[in-house]
Amino acid sequence: MGSHTRFVPTPRTLMGPGPSDVHPRVLAAMAQPTIGHLDPNFITLMDDIKALLRDAFQTSNALTLPVSAPGSAAMEAAFANLLEPGDKVIVCINGVFGMRMAENVKRMGGELVTVEDNWGQQVDPEKLRAALAANPDAKIVAFVHAETSTGVCSDAQALCAIAKEAGCLTIVDSVTGLGGVELRVDDWQIDVCYSGSQKCLSCPPGISLITYSEAAADRVKARNTPVQSWFLDLSLLMAYWEGEGARTYHHTAPVNALYGLHEALLMLHEEGLEHSWQRHRDMHELLVAGLEDLGLTMAVDARFRLPQLNVVQAPTGVDEGAVRKQLLADFNLEIGAGLGVYAGKFWRIGLMGYAARRENVTLCVNALSHCLPG
Amino acid sequence: MGSHTRFVPTPRTLMGPGPSDVHPRVLAAMAQPTIGHLDPNFITLMDDIKALLRDAFQTSNALTLPVSAPGSAAMEAAFANLLEPGDKVIVCINGVFGMRMAENVKRMGGELVTVEDNWGQQVDPEKLRAALAANPDAKIVAFVHAETSTGVCSDAQALCAIAKEAGCLTIVDSVTGLGGVELRVDDWQIDVCYSGSQKCLSCPPGISLITYSEAAADRVKARNTPVQSWFLDLSLLMAYWEGEGARTYHHTAPVNALYGLHEALLMLHEEGLEHSWQRHRDMHELLVAGLEDLGLTMAVDARFRLPQLNVVQAPTGVDEGAVRKQLLADFNLEIGAGLGVYAGKFWRIGLMGYAARRENVTLCVNALSHCLPG
Repeated sequence: MGSHTRFVPTPRTLMGPGPSDVHPRVLAAMAQPTIGHLDPNFITLMDDIKALLRDAFQTSNALTLPVSAPGSAAMEAAFANLLEPGDKVIVCINGVFGMRMAENVKRMGGELVTVEDNWGQQVDPEKLRAALAANPDAKIVAFVHAETSTGVCSDAQALCAIAKEAGCLTIVDSVTGLGGVELRVDDWQIDVCYSGSQKCLSCPPGISLITYSEAAADRVKARNTPVQSWFLDLSLLMAYWEGEGARTYHHTAPVNALYGLHEALLMLHEEGLEHSWQRHRDMHELLVAGLEDLGLTMAVDARFRLPQLNVVQAPTGVDEGAVRKQLLADFNLEIGAGLGVYAGKFWRIGLMGYAARRENVTLCVNALSHCLPG
Repeated sequence: MGSHTRFVPTPRTLMGPGPSDVHPRVLAAMAQPTIGHLDPNFITLMDDIKALLRDAFQTSNALTLPVSAPGSAAMEAAFANLLEPGDKVIVCINGVFGMRMAENVKRMGGELVTVEDNWGQQVDPEKLRAALAANPDAKIVAFVHAETSTGVCSDAQALCAIAKEAGCLTIVDSVTGLGGVELRVDDWQIDVCYSGSQKCLSCPPGISLITYSEAAADRVKARNTPVQSWFLDLSLLMAYWEGEGARTYHHTAPVNALYGLHEALLMLHEEGLEHSWQRHRDMHELLVAGLEDLGLTMAVDARFRLPQLNVVQAPTGVDEGAVRKQLLADFNLEIGAGLGVYAGKFWRIGLMGYAARRENVTLCVNALSHCLPG
């Protein structure tokens, strides 16, 4: 053993693809004393979280709950519960997280059909329509609403309408979407939607959020095979999250993380969902104007940019990694690197939740200006 | 939407089966500002956590790391990575968590052989020896070191020695054990050991800890089938936790929970592992003396009691649930209900980590005395 000392993080401004800046109210909520996961006091918190989550997702789904693990586990929960070996699943891919969906389907023994679009493009509804026509036995359509790797917002409403016409259940990844851009689970006919804590809700990472429609819950109940993951098995989780009065122990809930989630959802409720969407749009426009003044080019067409995740091309000849290092060293400002095919060429600048503020935009544009040549 | 207000938990003294009382230093550490999961600052934290975890587990295993989800996910990670469909696994069952292990093996397509002992008894090494003789093709032996449902400590060293003689890998659940009772991963030949944050480490629930021996890692590398869980796939996690210098993104680490874990591990290091074991024994003896003075009977033979989890029989004619309710209402004291076949008949009184203090023992014994008839 060497010597060990207390860890004191260097405070940063987080404008990457997540985690985003956490509001002090959320940090303070998380530091409250831990209570038991079956404490009657805690049960009231669980009920309020479910109600606030339904509002955030714009759904009346009874099965709307946190997942005690990060967004990738929520993705896994969606597929693990709905999919049985041999089921045909259409996954639309236009970035890293669509690829991760496809990987999940393969590992779970699903029959995978992919619909591919280029990075930086939306999922093309016509391609999905064609894939459904060619695969009338498909049971599930899955796609990413807000692609964190490219900053593209796909038309979830149109895609789900096409999928539902074909009788499919829909799984929609809105890890980066929820709270930052319009998302209407019920109106858009989404059967399973999941999101993360550390994006536009401005919570620390570690937990995620999921909602299941009645049709999705029926599919889970009608399964012929058990869900391979005991931890993510919805039928077992229901007894803890949906029980009347006393709850049945499944796993120990992440009590303090849920204090933080509740506070973040409460703040979103206080601001109002549509006001939050508008704030993200406003800050996005300010940021884009500033970046374009610096001569930088946005990667994504203005018609389908995610306001909360701005993908920007690094100028030719500029070492993008060196710029990020300097931003961190000189300004304690974190922006994100490109992911996948965007690595080394693009930056990802997040304006998520508490980070979507005028002071952050100003800092980011001027710090970048300082770090760019010329 | 109804009205929503900030959640303020009623402070409790947590003496159930976990979560245990969280030390204020851990709560304060968790409330520090969130930084990025790829921040160079965070990488130093990860390295220090790994070093401290190795000390806590008494292992030199390179693959010693936190899991970004509660203990049940760590259990699942252990089986999901080591087991391939058709593999024969011997699971020793003497309580709820052995049953959960068996459930995991079944869901993953393993061929399950069980060795059963009564609740309140240790896993019997001779039964394991007989099962191994009858099943020479078994690949894995799994059992619970510290059974949270019964308060029994099994002889992990003896059981692993028998399993290794038969050429099996060993999976050992020490969710409630780590930090509270002797546990020596390397000396005892444990191949995979996992634990929880919310027991004797006195962290909030939500993350867990796991260590894999080289033999276990070799088994993972030699797999013919992919791990069904992308989220728990060790081969992918290694690139984030074990990379040299820059780390490869897998999922977003639970940054603030890891601040808390680091502080808790640091506190264990400051106290010294053997001192912590001794403190748990000392407080256990005080508690048992107090409970016996009240005329209460311990459920488990003194030779194999877990000091940190004391299972006590509710006196005949006493409504055990009413007593727990009164303890919570009048003293803000949480003790645990019986689980499984112990439900309605036993209490589980935890003395875990920060909760293993003289003031807690005194409060518990005297509050119980107040709530019991006569």
